Amino acid sequence: MKIKKQLFCLLFILTSTFLSAQDLKTPTLSHLIPGGSNYLAVENLYSISWWGDFYIIPSHEQLNIHQASTGEKNLIITKDSLNSNLPEEDHTSSMYRVSLPWAKEKKLLIKNSDTYIIYDWENRKLVRKINFPKSSENIDFHTTSRNVAYTIKNNLYVNDKRITVEPEGVVCGKSVHQQEFGINKGTFWSPKGNLLAYYKMDERMVTTYPQVDVTTRISTVNNVHYPMAGMKSHKVYVGIYNVTSDQFIYLNTGDPTDRYFTNISWSPDEKYLYLIELNRAQNAAKLCQYDAHTGNLVKVLVEESHSKYVEPQNPISFLPWDSSLFIYQSEKSGFNHLYLYNTNGELIRQLTTGDWLVQELIGYNTKRKEIIYRSTEISPLESHIYSVNGKGERKLLNEEEGVHNALLSESGDFFIDYYSNPASPRSIECVSLTKKEKHTLLKAKNPLDGYLEPTIEVDTLLAADNKTPLYYRMVKPANFDPNKKYPVVIYVYGGPHAQMITKSWQWGTRGWDIYMANKGYIVFTLDNRGSDNRGLNFENCTHRQLGVLETEDQIKGIEWLTQQSFIDSSRIGVHGWSYGGHMTLSLLLRHPDLVKVGVAGGPVVDWSYYEIMYGERYMDSPQSNPEGYAKTNMKNFADNLKGKLLIIHGGIDGICVPQHTYSFLNACINAGTYPDLFIYPNHEHNVIGKDRVHLHEKITRYFENNL
Amino acid sequence: MKIKKQLFCLLFILTSTFLSAQDLKTPTLSHLIPGGSNYLAVENLYSISWWGDFYIIPSHEQLNIHQASTGEKNLIITKDSLNSNLPEEDHTSSMYRVSLPWAKEKKLLIKNSDTYIIYDWENRKLVRKINFPKSSENIDFHTTSRNVAYTIKNNLYVNDKRITVEPEGVVCGKSVHQQEFGINKGTFWSPKGNLLAYYKMDERMVTTYPQVDVTTRISTVNNVHYPMAGMKSHKVYVGIYNVTSDQFIYLNTGDPTDRYFTNISWSPDEKYLYLIELNRAQNAAKLCQYDAHTGNLVKVLVEESHSKYVEPQNPISFLPWDSSLFIYQSEKSGFNHLYLYNTNGELIRQLTTGDWLVQELIGYNTKRKEIIYRSTEISPLESHIYSVNGKGERKLLNEEEGVHNALLSESGDFFIDYYSNPASPRSIECVSLTKKEKHTLLKAKNPLDGYLEPTIEVDTLLAADNKTPLYYRMVKPANFDPNKKYPVVIYVYGGPHAQMITKSWQWGTRGWDIYMANKGYIVFTLDNRGSDNRGLNFENCTHRQLGVLETEDQIKGIEWLTQQSFIDSSRIGVHGWSYGGHMTLSLLLRHPDLVKVGVAGGPVVDWSYYEIMYGERYMDSPQSNPEGYAKTNMKNFADNLKGKLLIIHGGIDGICVPQHTYSFLNACINAGTYPDLFIYPNHEHNVIGKDRVHLHEKITRYFENNL
Repeated sequence: MKIKKQLFCLLFILTSTFLSAQDLKTPTLSHLIPGGSNYLAVENLYSISWWGDFYIIPSHEQLNIHQASTGEKNLIITKDSLNSNLPEEDHTSSMYRVSLPWAKEKKLLIKNSDTYIIYDWENRKLVRKINFPKSSENIDFHTTSRNVAYTIKNNLYVNDKRITVEPEGVVCGKSVHQQEFGINKGTFWSPKGNLLAYYKMDERMVTTYPQVDVTTRISTVNNVHYPMAGMKSHKVYVGIYNVTSDQFIYLNTGDPTDRYFTNISWSPDEKYLYLIELNRAQNAAKLCQYDAHTGNLVKVLVEESHSKYVEPQNPISFLPWDSSLFIYQSEKSGFNHLYLYNTNGELIRQLTTGDWLVQELIGYNTKRKEIIYRSTEISPLESHIYSVNGKGERKLLNEEEGVHNALLSESGDFFIDYYSNPASPRSIECVSLTKKEKHTLLKAKNPLDGYLEPTIEVDTLLAADNKTPLYYRMVKPANFDPNKKYPVVIYVYGGPHAQMITKSWQWGTRGWDIYMANKGYIVFTLDNRGSDNRGLNFENCTHRQLGVLETEDQIKGIEWLTQQSFIDSSRIGVHGWSYGGHMTLSLLLRHPDLVKVGVAGGPVVDWSYYEIMYGERYMDSPQSNPEGYAKTNMKNFADNLKGKLLIIHGGIDGICVPQHTYSFLNACINAGTYPDLFIYPNHEHNVIGKDRVHLHEKITRYFENNL
Repeated sequence: MKIKKQLFCLLFILTSTFLSAQDLKTPTLSHLIPGGSNYLAVENLYSISWWGDFYIIPSHEQLNIHQASTGEKNLIITKDSLNSNLPEEDHTSSMYRVSLPWAKEKKLLIKNSDTYIIYDWENRKLVRKINFPKSSENIDFHTTSRNVAYTIKNNLYVNDKRITVEPEGVVCGKSVHQQEFGINKGTFWSPKGNLLAYYKMDERMVTTYPQVDVTTRISTVNNVHYPMAGMKSHKVYVGIYNVTSDQFIYLNTGDPTDRYFTNISWSPDEKYLYLIELNRAQNAAKLCQYDAHTGNLVKVLVEESHSKYVEPQNPISFLPWDSSLFIYQSEKSGFNHLYLYNTNGELIRQLTTGDWLVQELIGYNTKRKEIIYRSTEISPLESHIYSVNGKGERKLLNEEEGVHNALLSESGDFFIDYYSNPASPRSIECVSLTKKEKHTLLKAKNPLDGYLEPTIEVDTLLAADNKTPLYYRMVKPANFDPNKKYPVVIYVYGGPHAQMITKSWQWGTRGWDIYMANKGYIVFTLDNRGSDNRGLNFENCTHRQLGVLETEDQIKGIEWLTQQSFIDSSRIGVHGWSYGGHMTLSLLLRHPDLVKVGVAGGPVVDWSYYEIMYGERYMDSPQSNPEGYAKTNMKNFADNLKGKLLIIHGGIDGICVPQHTYSFLNACINAGTYPDLFIYPNHEHNVIGKDRVHLHEKITRYFENNL
């Protein structure tokens, strides 16, 4: 991979220059940690949406409509006015609950706790009311057909009707496969909204993990189906319910044992349903076309395989101007790119190409026959918005450096450009595709203005392979003195699909990093091999030995640190959560002479306790890769614990189940080593809300007392 | 209560005087903690038993018989000789498995894993073999009838026959009522062994507590019925099975809801079964006589009530020389004493009396018509063996000071006297009742000879009521220098039925206390009001507010300490387990300015999480005593945590369920305070076996790092 040389020497000083250090307040954890009672959040405009080519900015009290070209604002309606024309039971509590999904119609959609209300804001009257029970979840409303799908417990309902009658342990209409493969929901309306594709998952054969709720009068257990690596997996089926005929079918996929059905999408004419199917080994994927009427397989359009794994994460997407063509995303070139296929499964053209990757297919401009997407073309640290036409000619649509996200208007002629960079905490602009006009909706100021801030440096160093450049970020105390020796806290994640360092606000620095730098620590983070936005080979070199190369890379970072004159090499600590918890253990236990203190949160200890879909993708199964599981099992290193280690776990963590930590404690007890422990009994995989401040105070004290 | 004045100034120096300090080895935790790989246990003779008036001392390899009067030894049989006369499947692995229960017969009883074997050691032949399944538990063999009762899962079996056919949640033949009221088994053979009384407990209405086993491939849950204070309790029934007729009946007790059926005993003629019944409030007890044939109540012989609680713990016991008379034990005078009743329920005589208590009814000497018992008559710190005749004339049977236990011979003419005192780690003697002859079986030497030992002082100070003397024990470093300032670790239990300080070996000092004193701490223990062997008022003053007065007394101890010139008042720590864990929390949280560091093991945090039988006896129910539950609920003091607190809990603690600790953590998280935590995932209420060394190293480090 080639990285543009000019990006290598990035340096940005964040220190507020208008105030001398004495005048600055020191931010507390409560200022810096989300959930803190006086958290200094970056200003934002929430829930911006499009109504045709007008954009809407809601507030609690009113909805304003803006001309996309000029930003000119007009009030549509206030909450008081809206509620005064509605029966009291239908009153909305906030205009954030109101949307305008019909571009051509002057109608509002209000989502209350058990109703959708369609309101004509021109004629000021309630048009229609769609009820769903208060106990329902996964509510999926189709704005054209006005059908609503939802689940109650484990069954699927449409409008007032129960569609599935499945016993406990069979779940319908919900997300499947542990939310892997980009799956985040379980219902998929056809374009016109009369057909509903849905997942059914039989998990009765999957072992349950007992999660204990200590807040009841006497502790109670929730037995949650958790398919662990190498064990029996659930079976998934794809159903299609026809609202008009009140019939449903299931796709004739054959035996669903050890198969993944992912990335559901509809053909524009609603005749076909497309899936990407994978085998359990996740080394072969097939884009399959099913007849939505009979449920039969029509054909396999695209097949992909890889000696390590393939990971489809994006459903195919049909061109609005030609329903015989669709975009298929693939990493087969080594980087995720857009490919144009026809419905015969013939590749028309690779639309994007290069040693960079497409991060998101955003939408289309039908008039100009352009596809809008987000990519890392400029730098792996940045995301920019581009268009590409059918010939593969692409155009950069935004200007400022940094990390951009876009919300496209109905026509695709405009988009809301959300971005941040080290100079701007958050900018929101409305940009025209054609004339490159733009105007600003928000330019957030630094929420830490007036507070003591560290300096942040970003640069690269070479990975343990001595050739791959890796980005690091160093957060230094504001009053940094190069003649002093500083202790270091390494904050690490290290796993796939995450990148700690981007050219966004503060280079992605977290509030706690700032807090610790203000306390006199250097906070260091390195995006090792295996992390995101650097392409497939960069990611999959960790295959079958998660954490091993990543640890070697982090050690390169530590070696680099120890070569710096201002680092106290005897005082290096590490903190990370989840995959970063594993990395913390790995660093402390594999290199006890380099790392003095670790705080591992919700760690993976033993990959055989992790779920099948994520775990076997990267590690294969415990049966087929016993050496890999052994050499990444932190219990096998329990006797290496020399430094101080605090393990923190959410008491009801459903992602890294508490067994990881408890089995590690047992290993340490047997080995005669002495980790420390804390449990947040009511928390799942992350400690969130106000308790997140407590968590970070706990972590801070551990470093203060031991590093 | 009057305590003899001469006991107030006890002082005993244990330091080995033959070696200078330099020559002494320092004992490690592994030397001092049971479970340690080189634990220095006090020598013992295990499994001594009587065969008539001969006593047997087994070893793994042989059985020796001794003349009670002289100690003259004769070999009965070796293991090799025994096994050579048995089929291989019946071979015994150790002569500790062999007993001689038939005083008049030259027969051995061998208990193997699934058989009892009766062996004629004179004629060297197997007489009888009684089988029971390997999976059976609670095996109860009657030596006269040779019937064997046992349980498999939740049902009762006798010989080869299944007696009860109860569904899951109904348990037969096992101990009930959470082992309170002296109950420790569930089957009770009649004197001749043809009738079997047994408990049946329906606990289907009792909420289950989920105990999680993290050692399985995926953690599994054991849902254990745990009747929490104020909640629904189990229902107990008493059955009687007649082996000859193969019939069973249940006693006609009426509705068993919220009643306790305790202290089962048979009349000598097997016609009647006696129980002591209590109401749920535990303030009224009735000694009831039931017809063993019909199951009907014959009469109530004795009734007792108390405004706080009555706690019967001893079944009635019939005089061997007059089956119309029995001994009933009661605390109604304020101290547990023996009362002679006839079967009409008429009190014949209070046999023992005084401001001291009977600790155990040991047995009888029929010839002399004497009752043998153990009491605190000499001192609450000592136990001595006495006889009393029907007129209440009593006689001290042993000589040496200290804590005695006795194993009486068949005739009652001799007893094995086990005792220890500060001068003797363990002495075992055979004592004649009549001539006061005795000879020594074992005189154990100090296992710490050659090791560094602290000095131990025992004395009294006044309780918080400023009138009750309380015993304390102070363990001082061997090289104690009165001009230095020492940190203190208080080891505390503090609850009923336990006494930390007795005039036994090392005054009851624990191995860890010695370890800490050797490290330079003064280890201090005080038996506060509420503890054992001081009588009913001393115990029950804590009623409805467990831990409150106890804490006040411990604070008196701390105040006394801080008045000593050699104490560093700024360095006082506390450690305790279970009730002592509660006391540790209570001291640290109620008196944050006096106590700097606490290590609370398996603590009671909230009495409403404790079981009904013990909990409601002392606290009444949460519904009837909300103030008491509130003021003893440590969660309500979570915001008072100023010092350092480590809480340790067994991951599958079935006595103080883990909810105590986890709910306390939640309270601290909400209050913004910062306890530390450790869990021993595989351990129940106590951390035992080799891990007990790890536990004490963990505790030690916490004090070393923080006190």
